[in-house]
Formats: sequence, structure tokens, C-alpha cells
Amino acid sequence: MIIAMKRGTVKEKIQQFAAYLEQRGVKIHFSEGASQTVLGLVGDTTGVDEEALRAHHLVEKVIRVQEPYKRVNRLFHPEDTRIDTIGPDGEIRHIGAGYLGIIAGPCSVESREQIVTVAAEVKQAGAGFLRGGAFKPRTSPYSFQGLGNEGLTLLLEAKKETGLPIVSELMDIHHLDAFNEVDIIQIGARNMQNFTLLKELSLCRKPILLKRGLASTIKELLMAAEYLAAGGNGRIILCERGIRTFENYTRNTLDLAAIPALKKESHLPVIVDPSHATGLSWMVPTLAKAAVAAGADGIMVEVHNNPETALCDGEQSLTPKEFGDLMEILQKYAAIEMRSIGTDKL
Amino acid sequence: MIIAMKRGTVKEKIQQFAAYLEQRGVKIHFSEGASQTVLGLVGDTTGVDEEALRAHHLVEKVIRVQEPYKRVNRLFHPEDTRIDTIGPDGEIRHIGAGYLGIIAGPCSVESREQIVTVAAEVKQAGAGFLRGGAFKPRTSPYSFQGLGNEGLTLLLEAKKETGLPIVSELMDIHHLDAFNEVDIIQIGARNMQNFTLLKELSLCRKPILLKRGLASTIKELLMAAEYLAAGGNGRIILCERGIRTFENYTRNTLDLAAIPALKKESHLPVIVDPSHATGLSWMVPTLAKAAVAAGADGIMVEVHNNPETALCDGEQSLTPKEFGDLMEILQKYAAIEMRSIGTDKL
Amino acid sequence: MIIAMKRGTVKEKIQQFAAYLEQRGVKIHFSEGASQTVLGLVGDTTGVDEEALRAHHLVEKVIRVQEPYKRVNRLFHPEDTRIDTIGPDGEIRHIGAGYLGIIAGPCSVESREQIVTVAAEVKQAGAGFLRGGAFKPRTSPYSFQGLGNEGLTLLLEAKKETGLPIVSELMDIHHLDAFNEVDIIQIGARNMQNFTLLKELSLCRKPILLKRGLASTIKELLMAAEYLAAGGNGRIILCERGIRTFENYTRNTLDLAAIPALKKESHLPVIVDPSHATGLSWMVPTLAKAAVAAGADGIMVEVHNNPETALCDGEQSLTPKEFGDLMEILQKYAAIEMRSIGTDKL
Amino acid sequence: MIIAMKRGTVKEKIQQFAAYLEQRGVKIHFSEGASQTVLGLVGDTTGVDEEALRAHHLVEKVIRVQEPYKRVNRLFHPEDTRIDTIGPDGEIRHIGAGYLGIIAGPCSVESREQIVTVAAEVKQAGAGFLRGGAFKPRTSPYSFQGLGNEGLTLLLEAKKETGLPIVSELMDIHHLDAFNEVDIIQIGARNMQNFTLLKELSLCRKPILLKRGLASTIKELLMAAEYLAAGGNGRIILCERGIRTFENYTRNTLDLAAIPALKKESHLPVIVDPSHATGLSWMVPTLAKAAVAAGADGIMVEVHNNPETALCDGEQSLTPKEFGDLMEILQKYAAIEMRSIGTDKL
Repeated sequence: MIIAMKRGTVKEKIQQFAAYLEQRGVKIHFSEGASQTVLGLVGDTTGVDEEALRAHHLVEKVIRVQEPYKRVNRLFHPEDTRIDTIGPDGEIRHIGAGYLGIIAGPCSVESREQIVTVAAEVKQAGAGFLRGGAFKPRTSPYSFQGLGNEGLTLLLEAKKETGLPIVSELMDIHHLDAFNEVDIIQIGARNMQNFTLLKELSLCRKPILLKRGLASTIKELLMAAEYLAAGGNGRIILCERGIRTFENYTRNTLDLAAIPALKKESHLPVIVDPSHATGLSWMVPTLAKAAVAAGADGIMVEVHNNPETALCDGEQSLTPKEFGDLMEILQKYAAIEMRSIGTDKL
Repeated sequence: MIIAMKRGTVKEKIQQFAAYLEQRGVKIHFSEGASQTVLGLVGDTTGVDEEALRAHHLVEKVIRVQEPYKRVNRLFHPEDTRIDTIGPDGEIRHIGAGYLGIIAGPCSVESREQIVTVAAEVKQAGAGFLRGGAFKPRTSPYSFQGLGNEGLTLLLEAKKETGLPIVSELMDIHHLDAFNEVDIIQIGARNMQNFTLLKELSLCRKPILLKRGLASTIKELLMAAEYLAAGGNGRIILCERGIRTFENYTRNTLDLAAIPALKKESHLPVIVDPSHATGLSWMVPTLAKAAVAAGADGIMVEVHNNPETALCDGEQSLTPKEFGDLMEILQKYAAIEMRSIGTDKL
Repeated sequence: MIIAMKRGTVKEKIQQFAAYLEQRGVKIHFSEGASQTVLGLVGDTTGVDEEALRAHHLVEKVIRVQEPYKRVNRLFHPEDTRIDTIGPDGEIRHIGAGYLGIIAGPCSVESREQIVTVAAEVKQAGAGFLRGGAFKPRTSPYSFQGLGNEGLTLLLEAKKETGLPIVSELMDIHHLDAFNEVDIIQIGARNMQNFTLLKELSLCRKPILLKRGLASTIKELLMAAEYLAAGGNGRIILCERGIRTFENYTRNTLDLAAIPALKKESHLPVIVDPSHATGLSWMVPTLAKAAVAAGADGIMVEVHNNPETALCDGEQSLTPKEFGDLMEILQKYAAIEMRSIGTDKL
Repeated sequence: MIIAMKRGTVKEKIQQFAAYLEQRGVKIHFSEGASQTVLGLVGDTTGVDEEALRAHHLVEKVIRVQEPYKRVNRLFHPEDTRIDTIGPDGEIRHIGAGYLGIIAGPCSVESREQIVTVAAEVKQAGAGFLRGGAFKPRTSPYSFQGLGNEGLTLLLEAKKETGLPIVSELMDIHHLDAFNEVDIIQIGARNMQNFTLLKELSLCRKPILLKRGLASTIKELLMAAEYLAAGGNGRIILCERGIRTFENYTRNTLDLAAIPALKKESHLPVIVDPSHATGLSWMVPTLAKAAVAAGADGIMVEVHNNPETALCDGEQSLTPKEFGDLMEILQKYAAIEMRSIGTDKL
């Protein structure tokens, strides 16, 4: 940590300030310039309150050199983390460390027929996981809010019929019991900094798919993951799903540079959701390919058997046929990048 | 609602589509251009699913003419809403409809002495409400998370000693009982779209101070308020606290145009938090004045008896002396705008 | 164009208003709702001033259905445009319509040795064009501003030695004569809406590489291209180079969804500059691959023989070796997408 | 300047690197941590190329402690700068250092009658300067581009008739002669980083009104001003006019915190343009008041005698009557802030 003292601070004051810091367990190096002194803090700075320092009347600037995340930091865990999930069909599916996880399914579970049909079709096309929302976060209280527990039940039937492990969003920790047979719990973008929920989920042992908030930086996403890891649950999949910018041609702006950034900073797998990122189904295959080219460990796409009658997000859903075509081309991209889709390494 | 059909759609298809819409209870007007037909939907469009329409293969664009918020919409409730709170001192304090609510206090409750001292000082200077965080949302799991229930207890002691009603942030609905004597419940920016929390709080009868999310539009803020109002709790105070932009001189970018915008669209009172908006205490008085000039119904500012030792956000806190100076000048601004601070109308 | 009249406007006023519009050559269709009338304008609306309408006291909203760009609009020119350039080596190089243009070279021309060495190396690796800045837009007046005319002279020597056509940025129309042997003129992001420059360059017959502004929407980029096309120069290459957002891990946020968006709206080729987008050389190959996967018609990357001593943007430059490795993998991506790099179609 | 070396760099390499830096005229202080060494550079760092350092293979981070602007920096010029202008009526008008400059007039000059009428009315209401566009930057090549030289001629007639000094935007340095009698030259937001134009205008002796770019940071605005000052023209008025964000209720997001920020960093006067910031005339008076409350040294507002027929930006123009009402209330705000409008100090 670097502290630039205010110009003109007398030497004595600076030494008192340094002594105060040293009591907190750090060593100080001094750089005395013509008009300004800069302190370098060496050692374990976790006992030093950065915000209190910024407010100190002798301090002009505080600059942090090291990142505040630890358990999710690649520095302390150089190997890629791989998330494994076993479906009822007995197959182990991997995400990360050379394996691409393909998660597909409708935005919302709407009926038994809908979810079972879509599940069978996306499995046929090569998806490794079925997604489906039972509890839906909606901007308007008057929009369809999901089928709730009934939706979960239908999702589990589709799991049983197809053998696909399932991914579904949890919005309320009270629902955790109902998510007992859900394989991967999704935390939505709007809940990325719902710290209450993060702390509670850090105590469970299921993999968590953590979506980046609309206005969250890469570092904040890692700090949210750190909440989960610090509480004991290190089975985390990060998900880039677009950030909010001035551009409104697409629903959000997909930040594919987040993939190499997150993979450099952290050992966790990173997947991409091009459906929510763009909100436009005709763009989804293009950005899914780009995501794999950019090093994503998987993609999550919305697939609906009849997008025109979807109760939610139809505009961004692929048909099963379009999804099948996408899977074919993704195989080629995966081959170039030496990645394996599903269960076998190339 | 306006629907632009895709170019070249044959007349017959358009008529089938229109018939399908009419079954949902709307009337259709046709504008047939040389290459494109545009439909105008008249009547109650709540039975028409806008998203499903966008996904329809014959549709190019869907444009909504009316706003989706109702209970918080000024159109249906032209008079300003005023939020009244009675403190233990028996005084009624108003926010909105000509009255400015002044909410002041530390970011976090740290000790009995701290909160009682600050409370007495801000009351003396003219504040109508004491703020103080007991449960704190923090980006890092390793930062101070607030004193929790003990913090609430100390806050209530300060309330008793000074007579000031209190405002505190609720992050977890389980804590609602503990908030029984809190006068105004704050929903933080990161929880603005925590729909689970909004739905539960819509059932309580306390005033809710709803902060705008970092990346939330004015319309989304109103929709979040609509969640509260739709559930039965219309006692809502909106709070502009800065949005996230590319500019990083300040912590966030304070959007003061949100005040006239929100007050045009809605009848709810709108206050401003210049402390979180800028993160820089030396800017807080300047922006507090600007907020009152822009029509705010109050301000919420952080005041700490010793910002340099604050456990949280010291950098953005005023000293009690600075707060007192600010109150003096705000009186002059309120006078120009014919607003009353506290309890009496000018 | 759709015009929603203010609620409660009497019928007579609306009819007068409609008559006024009809004099401007459009036909009007009326949608009369319970509380509001909506007008649909059919026909050629170019004679109707949208801004004046918005300011009219009877008007609540004006919504444009069709896009304001014409010459660059794919609607009026369905075939992909291809930009051809002949180098002094006699080879024709294509950009667009199935061909990838690869533009590489240093940010700034620094010396004869530097530019000739880099040129030879990037040609060897497969680049089709040499880029190099002679006139540099720099945030600070105290930063290196480029070698100016001397830089251009050195660039032309490199062109002669290697046979590569060259791309260089023009900041001042007075320099146009000096750019006589430059093959493609670049307009930088900060000049995308320098309308004076656009109008003057619309009169020249050289291909223009038009970079998207830091805060420019996709539609504004197309309108800037429309300035060139309207003036008579339709040989335009659009370039996505990152937009400014709140995320600051990277210099800018690369918006790869702009590629499918621009290619849907327009027939012009679209290339990507991952060097300026990220500012981080270690990310450049990853995003170059993603750009090709997303359908880019080429990439522009910074290559420097010794990034550590570069006078400008060394942090984002690849070494020739890194560029060579990138070209190898891009060949594989181009093959999947059935694109040809350089001169021969697959 | 602070340089964090990469972890694990051997001591010898660090010493070589430090020696290389010392040859550039700086002194080095070392902070050796357990795993990382941090260098503090003391003295004149202008000979050290920050970008080259960032690209160096031994360097992890480079952090600048001091700001790169000098002539516009308040550190080196603590007193407020005041811009004085003499109108043909012989009155000296001040902007800055306690004086508010009020600039009003239409977006575009449209006719003799229009500009003379508006000029007389805004003078009557208390404006100190007449604004009017003769050359207009427009997103579309098909929109009205201003009357050009004829517009300037009409503007000068209005100057002569009313005695008001005039402000007009220059887009092309070739027009400089025609601007001979223009009192303050405006550089528009889209030209804030048109460095060619800035360099040329730095040679003239007229005051420059420099508008902040849509996506420009406060520091970039100051660096653009530094271009003018470095070239010899220190008579600069900075103008906040809204930045581009995700919020689209208003045309841009007015960043009033920029006023205290700019005034802390620089000695230059800062004015605000609420018309372009919001694009909504009904909001303009509200934000004009807020700007004065926030410490602005003046405002620039669009006034049109008949906004509904304005050829440009009618939606954001006040009527002369609305402008007169605004001036009355601004007098009260100025009085609180001890500012003088026009020519006499309170």
C-alpha cells in the first residue's frame, strides 16, 4: 500500500503518522520528494483500514498495490479450478480446466411439456446442462414472476427424463430446501451484491453460478465470489452476461475482455451468457462463438421450443434447431482451442 | 402500444395477427405505408405480453407509449405525497409536499458514545432524522460489516436520548422484527432490485427509503417503488445517490436531473445523498445545496464526530461543525424555494 | 414516424396539426385511444423536422420507425461492400465480402529502421497492410505528437521496401496532399464526429477507415459514415475499437456485438482494433480471435519490434513473434468461417 | 511516480532498472516487501515516459501521484482566473472570480428578425452575452447545418443593435477570420479532443469556451485546456454540458460535481449548459439554479422566440418569458452565494 502525504506536511507529523501505522504491524519505507513524502507500506496490510487512511487529514492519496481478493486469486491457487457435476444419467460433466460447459434451456419453466421437450432437444444437440427459471426477477411487479415451486418440480422431471443436471436461479434463501436436487444454483446479476444471500450460500456445498452485476466491475465480481469462498464454498462459476453502457442497440454490452481478465486474476471457470447480454436471438450464435474464441469455459443460452409464445425473454431465445446448428460450429471452435465439450477431453 | 410489422408482410398475415391481438382485449388501428404496416393498439394493453410480441416473426419493433408504473405514477395521483414521522419527542416531521427532510448521522454505528454524541450534534444543528448503519453492505467480506443488532440497540438509545426518529438499512427480511422501532427502513442501492426483499417490505407499514441502484434508470427506480406500492405500502421516499459512469474523480456521478424527472413522473418525495454520490466530504455541502436548488425534498448526509477514525466511509463524512454550517446555508436555499425544513411550513 | 399527442388535446387541434403535417407531404393515420390520440405518418418523412415536432406544445412523444441513414444502409444496398487496395507489389488486397484485412504495425513511426523492420516482419507473418502513425492525437500536449511529415516519408519507404499498402491517421485536412500515397486514411475515434473533416474527406476517393468514437453509438457511427457517403465517398471501413464504460480493468470495453449489429444495418466492412480497445498486449490475441469469430472483416493490431522502448502505447503492442503466432491461429478461425486472409478466397 | 516491480524480480535486475531511470534525472527510493519491490521516483518525472514504463517486462504497475496538467493547475496559480469581455456598449462583463456570466440565445441563427428579437429579449432579462450557432455540428448530414457566414453576419448585427458580446461555435480553423468580431469562441463537445483545432486556437487571443466532451473525464477536459494554455492562450472558460451514461430520460447526464472538482483542480472559470445536458426545456431552469448553487461561474442556455418552429433543438429551448423568470430567481441564488451577475460585484 502506498500513501502520498499532503504537500507541506512537516517531518515530525509524518513520523508520528508512520509510528501509528507501524503499530498496526507494517513496515514503512519513505520516499521524500521536494514537496511531498510518499510512504510505502510493506508486510501484511490487512490490519490497516484503507478508508480511515483516506479520511486522515495528513493524507492526500492511498493506493493499493495488491488485490483484496485471496481465495479466488490465482496468485494463491495457480491451477484452474474445475467444477464437476454428476447427472442422474451417471455422467460426470466438467466446467473449466479445458472443459466447456454448455447450459441451455428456456428463460422460464412454463409447463411440463415445454420443459421436457426443450430438455430432450438441447440434450440431443449436445448441451450438458438444462437451465430453466422457476423464480424470476422481473423489473415490473405486473410481469410473469415464474411458476415457483411448481416450476422446480417440472424442472426436476425434465432432469429425470433426460439425465441432464439442472441450473436454476435462487432469489430467496428460504427456497434453499426446494433447491435440494438442483445441481447448480444461479445467483442473478441483480443479486451479485446481495451480501446476505452470498453469505448464506457460502455455507452450502452446491456449485454456484455467479452472474456479474449490470454495473459491477471485474474486481467487484471477484469480491462477490470471495464472499462465497471465504464462507467455505469455493465451487464457483463466474458468468459474464453484459454490462450496462450508453449503447442501447443491444440490451447490454457484452464485455468479452472480462474472460481473459477474470482468468488471469482468478482460477475460477468463466462462462458467458450471450442471450441476456444482447437480448437479440439472431446475435446469440455469433457471440457464443466469440466467447469460446475468447477462452470462455462454457456458455449459457436460452432455448425455447416456441420463442413467439414464451412468457419471458422470447426475443432472445434460440429455437432448438438454431441451438443444434450452433453446437455444431462450437465443436469446431472448441477443437481449435483444444477444449472438450461435455465429458471427454480431446 | 405501437407495433411496426416487418416489411413485406402480406396483408392476410397482418389481419390474422391483428385478430389474435383483438382477442386479448385491445382495438387495432392500421397505418399502411408503402412498404410497412404499423399497428396502433388502443385500450387496456396489460393483457398483451410485450416481450412475446417482440419475439414474433412478423414483428419488427414494439414501442410502448404509456409508462408501466401505475400506483407511483403522478398521472393517477396528481398531489405530492408527504411522509410523516413522529419522533419520541412528539414532533411530527414531514418529508415532501413542501417540506425538506434532513437525515444525518454516521455511516456505521460504532459505539454508544459515538452515536449519542453525533445524534445530539446533528439535532442541535437542525437535522430531523438520525441515520446510522447497523448492518452494512460491504464489497469485501473482510471489511467491517456493522455491529448488527447491537448497533440497532445503540441507535435506539440515541433515538431515546435525542427524540430524533431514525433511519437504518435493512438487508435481510429476518431482521424485520429488530427494526420494529426504526422509523424509516432504508433499502440500499445494491438491493433496489432485490425483488424478494421488496415484496416482503411491501407488506409492512413503515416508510421505506428506496435508494436508486448504481446502474438503475429512473424508470427502473419507479418500477422498484411500484413493487412496494403494488404490495400495499405506498409510504416511499425515493433517493438519488449517484450512478456509475466512466468518470472516476467522484465515487459515482450524482444525477440531479433525476429530481425533476422523478417528480414529474411520480408523486413520491425525492431526497438526495451527496455523501455516497461523491465519496468526498469536501464536495458534500456544495452538492447538498445544488440538490435543494434542484427541488429535492430532503438530503441524507454522513456526519461523524471523528471522520479520521471512522470504521467506514470516513472520507465522505462531514464533521458536526461542517454539518452545522451547511444547515445554515440550506435554510437560505429552502427560503428561496419556499420550503420548510423540519416541521413548520414557511 | 409515430406521434403521440398530449392527453386531452381536443379533436379540432389534432386535426389542424395533422393538416399542417400533410402539407409537408405525408399521409396521416389516426389511432384514437380513450385518453390519447396517436398519429402514424406514412410516406416520405424527410420533409418533417423531428426536433421541431418534439418541441410542439401538443406533442408528447415522437418515435422514429425507420433509420436515418440511407447510403450506408443495407436495406438499400443488400450486397456486402468490398474495399480493394493494390500495393506496390501489384497484389490486390480485399477487405469485406468474405475477405479479412489484417492491418499491423507500430502505433507511431519512430525511425526508418523501426518501421522498415516491423513492416518486413508483419508482412512475413501474413499482414496485408502496414499501419503507422505520423500525426498522433495525444491527451497531453507534452506527450510525443508523432514525427509528422517525416513519419509519413518513412512510412512510404517501408511501403516501397515491402510492397504493403499503408494505413495512417489524418488529423488535419491540410495534410491531405502529404497523404497522397497513403492507401487508406484513418479517422481516429476522437474525430469520428469532426464533421468538418468528414465533409472534406467525403470529396476524396481514398478508402477511409472510420473508427468508432469512445462514446458513440452504433447509429452515430453509421451517421458519421453517412457523411462520407453522402459527400460521394462510399469506400468506408468501419472500425470497432472499444467504448468508454465504468469498467477500467481494460482501457476501453470492446463491444463485439457491434460487429453483427453494424453488418445487419449496413453493407460496409467492419474491422476490430483490439489493441486500443484493451490497452493490454497480453489480451490482444484473445480478442483478435474473438473478433474473427464474431464476424469481423479484419483486425488492426499494434506491433512493435521493441514494445518496451516504444514512444507511444508500448503497453498494448505485440512483438513480431507474438503477431506471427496470432496469424497462425487466425488462419484456423478464418477457415471455420470460410473467410480468406489476404488475397485468395478459400 | 510509483512503480511496482513484478513479483520475484531479482535484486540485480531491479538495480539495473533503477540505474536506467536515474539516468533520466530522477531519484529512486526503494520499498522492498516480502515478495515485491516498489520504487518511488522523486524529482522531475517529465523525462520519464510513463507508457514505456508500463510496457516494460519487469514492471507490474505504474502509478502517477501528481497531475499532468500545469498551466491550468490551481497548484501553480492559486487565484481564480477572471475572463473579461467588453461589448460594443462599452460595458465590461466578467466571468469567474465572483462573477456569473449569463450566456443566452438560440441554438442556431435562423434569420435577422429571429436573432435580433431574441438578443433584445435576453438582454432585457439580464443576459450578459448572446449565443447563436452559425456553423452547427449535426449527427446527420441531412439535418440543417447552420446558416454559416450569413449566420455570423446576422449575429454581428444583433451584437451591434443590443451591445451584447457574442459567443459562437467554431468548427473549422479556416473560419477564424470570419470570427474576428466574435467575442468568445466556443469549442463544442465533439471537438474537445480535436487537437489540431486546439493547437491552432491556442495561438489566438480570444477567450475560448471549451465544452466537455460527451465521454471525457474531468482530467481530460483539463488536459484539453492545457493544450490551449500551453500554446499561449490562457483565457479559457470550461463548460460542463452533460456526459453520456446509460440513463436516457435526459439527453445526457449533467455532472454538477464537475464544478467543485474543476474549481479545486484549476483556477479557470466553469460554466454550465443545462440545455444540452438535459435536452428538455422544462428541466432547464431547475438545473440552472442547481448549477449556480453548485458554484458555477455562469450558465449558457438556449432561448428561442418560438421553440416550436426552431430549426434545431427546439425541444430544449426556453421562451424569452421563461428565461426572464429564471433570471429573477437566479439573482436570489447569486445573492446567497455572494456572486454578482453581469458587471458589478455585490
